[in-house]
Amino acid sequence: MSHELIGPVRAGDRRALARAITLIESTRADHRAEARELLAGLLPAAGGAIRVAISGPPGAGKSSLIETLGLRLVDAGSRVAVLAIDPSSSRFGGSILGDKTRMIELSRRTEAFIRPTPARGALGGVARRTREAMIAVEAGGADVVLVETVGIGQSEIAAAAMVDLFMLVVAPGAGDDLQGIKRGVMELADLVVVNKADGELAAAARRALADYGAALGLMRPRHDDLPAVALAASALTGDGIDEVWAAVTERHQALAADGRLQALRAAQAREWMWSEVREGALDAIAADGAAGSRARELESEVAAGRILPVEAARELLAALLREPPPA
Amino acid sequence: MSHELIGPVRAGDRRALARAITLIESTRADHRAEARELLAGLLPAAGGAIRVAISGPPGAGKSSLIETLGLRLVDAGSRVAVLAIDPSSSRFGGSILGDKTRMIELSRRTEAFIRPTPARGALGGVARRTREAMIAVEAGGADVVLVETVGIGQSEIAAAAMVDLFMLVVAPGAGDDLQGIKRGVMELADLVVVNKADGELAAAARRALADYGAALGLMRPRHDDLPAVALAASALTGDGIDEVWAAVTERHQALAADGRLQALRAAQAREWMWSEVREGALDAIAADGAAGSRARELESEVAAGRILPVEAARELLAALLREPPPA
Repeated sequence: MSHELIGPVRAGDRRALARAITLIESTRADHRAEARELLAGLLPAAGGAIRVAISGPPGAGKSSLIETLGLRLVDAGSRVAVLAIDPSSSRFGGSILGDKTRMIELSRRTEAFIRPTPARGALGGVARRTREAMIAVEAGGADVVLVETVGIGQSEIAAAAMVDLFMLVVAPGAGDDLQGIKRGVMELADLVVVNKADGELAAAARRALADYGAALGLMRPRHDDLPAVALAASALTGDGIDEVWAAVTERHQALAADGRLQALRAAQAREWMWSEVREGALDAIAADGAAGSRARELESEVAAGRILPVEAARELLAALLREPPPA
Repeated sequence: MSHELIGPVRAGDRRALARAITLIESTRADHRAEARELLAGLLPAAGGAIRVAISGPPGAGKSSLIETLGLRLVDAGSRVAVLAIDPSSSRFGGSILGDKTRMIELSRRTEAFIRPTPARGALGGVARRTREAMIAVEAGGADVVLVETVGIGQSEIAAAAMVDLFMLVVAPGAGDDLQGIKRGVMELADLVVVNKADGELAAAARRALADYGAALGLMRPRHDDLPAVALAASALTGDGIDEVWAAVTERHQALAADGRLQALRAAQAREWMWSEVREGALDAIAADGAAGSRARELESEVAAGRILPVEAARELLAALLREPPPA
């Protein structure tokens, strides 16, 4: 009954892990069924990693920071997985990735597993498959999962919904007035890292650090006893990287110690379930011949402005449901 | 059969319009049914406005710009509606609004209708009710609908899905390195307005204008023949405001002339329908006693990590659907 990849993935076989994630990312119906079977077998072995989002504007040096941080973690005996949420698979996202030369050193290490770009074409939520990939890499033994976000704010929200801690990476200069960082994203942050604190930018980094520290001080922290902190670091020289990770692990331990981490993960899992209900309804319509063809007719009516989208949606759901949808 | 507010709203009665939007924003099941009846009666009279998103980081002066622009449009004979997408009603948004003193002058004009904060608590998409409010204000005679976005990138994406043109408002200084504006948001923009181009900031605004112009030049425009433009303006002095609106109307006419506007709106309506299908599935579970209580059990199982969220979602949908969901 159990999927053939469950054993090898749980035993730490990297090729099996890569195949598992390829299966997870597939949109073929038979692959989806297989992926669910696989994931059900991996779930009991998942959950053991520190999950951290690495977010920030383009040019902040997220990938370099992940490379430097990841190498140190690996050198210290950790197994590190790097996943990405890339909204270029959705309508409005920019296609920003594609730099194949990122994280060269880290990608050579057998203790690291990097899956930079999720497959395109998943129906709905940008992060649906990244969540599942997280289960796979944790079952494969990852101690640390870094979820890199790319592009527009949508991916930060998706990342925040699946990680324990949220790290915002910025470059000196953007901090002069903080205009750049959307306040909503700042409020997600447990940790702001002013990267590129080296060479010519060292002075600017100190100013940015003070600015971000002041800005964080004005915001209500997500956890009252764990106010968000700003730290300076350099992915280039490695300065400050250990302190960044120390801040991450300190917070993580504090959250784990009193059950808040478990509560957070439980809430995330519940929200994930509801997200799957939403997307599952669309899958069901697509898979039902009559509903699918009526959906195409209703799309035309809606597009022509003859029917309200909410009425068309009600009709589609009514055709699918045992009982008509509620008023 | 028809709702009592349909006539008054279509006749331009502002109090009826305000009541209509209050009804639209209500989450009560009987109000939702009433709202759909009302909206069905308003839909044929909707669609006549220029729909523009006004987005930008906190501090860019969006509200002041809307006030100055709105007053000019009203003086020129337009009827202007200002709606907002506020992600503070969702889990991850910041609660940034609440400044009751915004747009004082504009709010006093009978030709303007300002609805700054959508009701909280709507299940699902932050913009679900803003879309419906747009139908109501258009049926009430609005020539221009300005959709202001607040906070995190989620609201920009939602706004882009319901407007004809997307205006990004920035302040001088943020443009020094463009770190601040997320590339995904820049790519949504038809028009970047460097606000506060007055007094001490005039020189900085000129530099920012050049920077944004250069950045836009590097991006693939949404419409090949209508590259995004950057303009400087001052909500304080009014300088440049007419030019901003001229750029908006020029683009709008170009899009309308060859059918692209209609195609865009048709695509938006289709996507809206699917969004309502997603949320309708959740509504149906909440309204079904057995499914609702099984959902609470499954939430516990999922939260405890005993069941995959995707499996729990499948079970819930299977309980609701005539046929089990597809593999």
